[in-house]
Amino acid sequence: MGKGQATRALVLEHGLEVASELGLEALTIGTLAERAQLSKSGLYAHFSSKEDLQCQVLDAGAARFELEVMAPAIAQPRGLPRVEAIQRGWMRWETEVLAGGCPFIAAAAEYDDREGPVRDRAEHHIGRMVAAVERAASIAVEEGHFRADLDVQQFAFELWGIVLGYQQFARLLRHPDAATMTLRAFADLNARAAA
Amino acid sequence: MGKGQATRALVLEHGLEVASELGLEALTIGTLAERAQLSKSGLYAHFSSKEDLQCQVLDAGAARFELEVMAPAIAQPRGLPRVEAIQRGWMRWETEVLAGGCPFIAAAAEYDDREGPVRDRAEHHIGRMVAAVERAASIAVEEGHFRADLDVQQFAFELWGIVLGYQQFARLLRHPDAATMTLRAFADLNARAAA
Repeated sequence: MGKGQATRALVLEHGLEVASELGLEALTIGTLAERAQLSKSGLYAHFSSKEDLQCQVLDAGAARFELEVMAPAIAQPRGLPRVEAIQRGWMRWETEVLAGGCPFIAAAAEYDDREGPVRDRAEHHIGRMVAAVERAASIAVEEGHFRADLDVQQFAFELWGIVLGYQQFARLLRHPDAATMTLRAFADLNARAAA
Repeated sequence: MGKGQATRALVLEHGLEVASELGLEALTIGTLAERAQLSKSGLYAHFSSKEDLQCQVLDAGAARFELEVMAPAIAQPRGLPRVEAIQRGWMRWETEVLAGGCPFIAAAAEYDDREGPVRDRAEHHIGRMVAAVERAASIAVEEGHFRADLDVQQFAFELWGIVLGYQQFARLLRHPDAATMTLRAFADLNARAAA
């Protein structure tokens, strides 16, 4: 990695923290220069605008999600074990991986009503995550773990709703049973899908 | 209503729009003075700080939620009809009532990691909404519509997850089947709870 690439990676790491803690809107070249202890002009060499920075931070978040949630799941056997690994990994992603929680949920809430590249990027990444769940459920059908007539789109929708509920019960409501209720909801979802 | 109260109500109405469209963080006395075409000094007579304004806007949002979702549901017969009315009303709340969608989901995403009165107020209102679902489910148990051993806390958790999934599939992903999948998830949730 050259010096320029290393700086860019470091800045994106800080950017992901800011997006996680305060949301994407709080992510400006000024705030980030301060956090990363670099000059604003130095940052403009890597990011052409606030929006470009926000989009690149979302891309860095998606790469981190792949690493933390999807890669360990793909190391599991095809079918139900992989689906369960995605579910458990996603719970960790919401509450343990980044100090401020999921930057995509923050981005979705902030940008869903504002047309532009940031909204498009958030939509793209969340859409891809949902599609990955659909694929994992389809493989579980192929493996005979889930029933042949399972609606995988419905399955992915419900899985994602449980993740969103977990995120809010754990982080905002600080509900003592957030993890227990989430695991129970996943077990029930998988049982309903079972062959 | 005196002139002062009328001004305050008008400002909160505009504030709710801003919170819905851009999030609570974007809600400042300056932005709001511009929208409501009032002087900043005039607004300081009603709101002592940005945080006070944000909290009062969340309270106004909760009152609107009561009016739009809970009041029509309570007009329905006790038990399952009332639960179903909450589910349908909450879908309208997420996509139809306010142009920018639910100010509570936005507030939760923005403030879950920032200690202070705004976070506390968002937690209070979302906690109350979840508790209202628990009560409606308990009444459905009493009426014999839901089974006697139903875990109403789990029921409310899963209902809220489906609402959150709907909000994101409809608003961010603009998924053509968002409403269909949500209605199916609700029907399934109710069927699993049925006596």
